Amino acid sequence: MAVYTEVPDEELAAFLANYDVGTLLSFKGIAEGVENTNYILHTDRASYILTLYEKRVDPADLPFFLDLMDHLSAKGITCPLPLHDREGKSLRTLCGRPAALMTFLEGLWVRKPNVEHCRALGGALAAMHRAAFDFPGNRRNALSVDGWRPIFAAVADRADTLQPGLAAEMEAELTFLEANWPAELPDGIIHADLFPDNVFFLNSRLSGLIDFYFACRDYIAYDVAVCLNAWCFEPDLSFNATKARAMLTAYAGKRRLTTEEYAAMPLLARGAAMRFLVTRLYDWLNHPPGALVRPKDPLEYARRIRFHRSVTSTGEYGLD
Amino acid sequence: MAVYTEVPDEELAAFLANYDVGTLLSFKGIAEGVENTNYILHTDRASYILTLYEKRVDPADLPFFLDLMDHLSAKGITCPLPLHDREGKSLRTLCGRPAALMTFLEGLWVRKPNVEHCRALGGALAAMHRAAFDFPGNRRNALSVDGWRPIFAAVADRADTLQPGLAAEMEAELTFLEANWPAELPDGIIHADLFPDNVFFLNSRLSGLIDFYFACRDYIAYDVAVCLNAWCFEPDLSFNATKARAMLTAYAGKRRLTTEEYAAMPLLARGAAMRFLVTRLYDWLNHPPGALVRPKDPLEYARRIRFHRSVTSTGEYGLD
Repeated sequence: MAVYTEVPDEELAAFLANYDVGTLLSFKGIAEGVENTNYILHTDRASYILTLYEKRVDPADLPFFLDLMDHLSAKGITCPLPLHDREGKSLRTLCGRPAALMTFLEGLWVRKPNVEHCRALGGALAAMHRAAFDFPGNRRNALSVDGWRPIFAAVADRADTLQPGLAAEMEAELTFLEANWPAELPDGIIHADLFPDNVFFLNSRLSGLIDFYFACRDYIAYDVAVCLNAWCFEPDLSFNATKARAMLTAYAGKRRLTTEEYAAMPLLARGAAMRFLVTRLYDWLNHPPGALVRPKDPLEYARRIRFHRSVTSTGEYGLD
Repeated sequence: MAVYTEVPDEELAAFLANYDVGTLLSFKGIAEGVENTNYILHTDRASYILTLYEKRVDPADLPFFLDLMDHLSAKGITCPLPLHDREGKSLRTLCGRPAALMTFLEGLWVRKPNVEHCRALGGALAAMHRAAFDFPGNRRNALSVDGWRPIFAAVADRADTLQPGLAAEMEAELTFLEANWPAELPDGIIHADLFPDNVFFLNSRLSGLIDFYFACRDYIAYDVAVCLNAWCFEPDLSFNATKARAMLTAYAGKRRLTTEEYAAMPLLARGAAMRFLVTRLYDWLNHPPGALVRPKDPLEYARRIRFHRSVTSTGEYGLD
C-alpha cells in the first residue's frame, strides 16, 4: 500500500523506450500490494502495471515468478502477462531495482466474498494448479513448516504483549505441526497467497488472478488450505461451512483431491494459519514508526488455528 | 499518498449507480494526494477519479472547489471536471465522507521541471487567473499572513529541535511579514498550491491543472510567489533565475503584473515560503507514528525565505 520508489521522468521514458507500448499518457502510483512499488500507466494503446521489486523480494526469484505468469497465461489462466522488451526480456532494471511491465487486468477484488465468489475461487484455484503441472520452474516454499519457527523465535519473547499465553500456544502448535506435518502429498506450483485482494471479479465472474510473488513448489492441498482460511471465515471469524463447501466442491470438480490430501486438510489449514500468524506477528512487532504500510492483525490467525484444532474431520469443512 | 478509506463493494456500486458512467471494470487506490483518498476507476467508457474528502477538508468548502473546477473547465482551462449525478449534484456522500467523481486527466507531473516547463506553467497560471476573474464563489485564504502565527505558536517551542535558532528566525520573520504585508493588491481566485505534482504535461505540453483544494480568494500575485518557490529552485535550493524569468515572462504575457504586484514580489515570496514552512514544521513535529504519509522537509522553506530576504528588487527574479 505504498510507493517506495519515485521514478524520475527521464528514467521512466528510457525504460519504456525498450517496449512497444505506445505513447505514455499517465503514470500514477497505486496503493495496493505491500511488498513492491506499483504504478498504473495509461498509454495511447492500453493500460499497464509497472512493478518495481523492493527489498523483500529476492531478485533471484523473479524469473520464476515472471516465467510462471507467462506459462499460466499461455495455458488460459487470466493473470498479468509480463511484457517482453525488444530484446525479449521481461525483467529489466529501473531506479536500481528489478522492474517489470505487465498487462493491466481489469476487475475488482471483492471486499466481502459471498458463496458464489468462493465457488468461483475454488474452480480457478484448481484450474491454476492444473495449468501449472508442467511448469518447469522451481522455487521452494521458504514459508512452509520449516520456515515458521525461526520467524517465531525472533519475536516469541514479545508475543504475549499481544495476548497473554500466545507464545506458549504458538510454541505448542509449532511443535505439533513440525511433528505431524505430512511427509508426502502431491506437490506442484502453488500461489500461496490467494487472498481476496489477489482475485479479480467482473460482474460476479472471476476475471483473473494476480500477485504471484509468493508462488512456489509445495503441497498443492496447502494452497487450498490457505484459501479456506482467507475466504471462508466471516469478519467475526466464525467459519462459514457453506462457503467452504462451495469452494472445495468447485475445486474437486476440476482437480480431484486425493484421500490423503482430503484427510490432511485440517492439519494443512492449521499450518496455513500458522504461516500468516508468524509473519503477521513479526511485522506487528517490528513495524517501524513512520512506515507506509499498516500491519495486519496477527490474532485473527491465532483464532483460525483454534478453530481448525477443533476440527476432527474434513467433513466439518462442508465437503462429504 | 494514502488510502484512508476502503470502499466496500456494495457501497461503491450504489454510489456509481447515481452517475451515467457505464460499467465498472477496475478500481484502485492511488498513492497521490496527501489530504484525501483517491481511487482511479476504469469503466467500459472512460477512466475517472473518485475522491473521498477526509477530515482535513472542511465539507463547507467543497461546493466552492467543485464549482470552481466547473467554471474553469467551462472557460477552457483543463482541469478535472466533477461529474454531475442524475440529480445534477456533483457532491455526494460515500462511506460517511463527502465524495466526488471526476473526469480523469491524462498527463504526467514533472519530477524535475526545466525552463520550458516553468514557461508553460507561467502561462497556464495567468490563464487560470483570468478564467477565474468572474467566478462568483468566495473562500478566504486561511493560510495567508493571519494564519501563520497560530500554527507557528503551536510548535514554536520545538522548532529548534530541527535547527538551532529556527524559532527565533521564524518569530522575527513573522513579525516582519505581519508588519509589512501589502494592504492592497489585486485579488482574485488563486490555486495556492500549484506545485509540480499538481501540473500535468504530455510531451512537454502542459495538459492540465489538478488539486484545487487550497483554492481561495487572495492577492493574485501571491499565487505567482508560491510558484516561484515551488518551481524555480534547484534540488540544492539554489535559485534558478532563468526558470523564474521564463515563468514570469510567460505569466506577464497573459496577465500583466501591476507595478505594485511587481514591487511586492520579494515580500510575497517570503510570505509564500513562510506558509509552507509553518505547515510543514507543524506536520513534521506532529507526525503520528504509523501515519501513511511521510512529512515533507520544512527546512527547505526556511532556506527559501533566507534567499528571498536577500533579494532587493524583483529584477533579481530575472524579470526586468
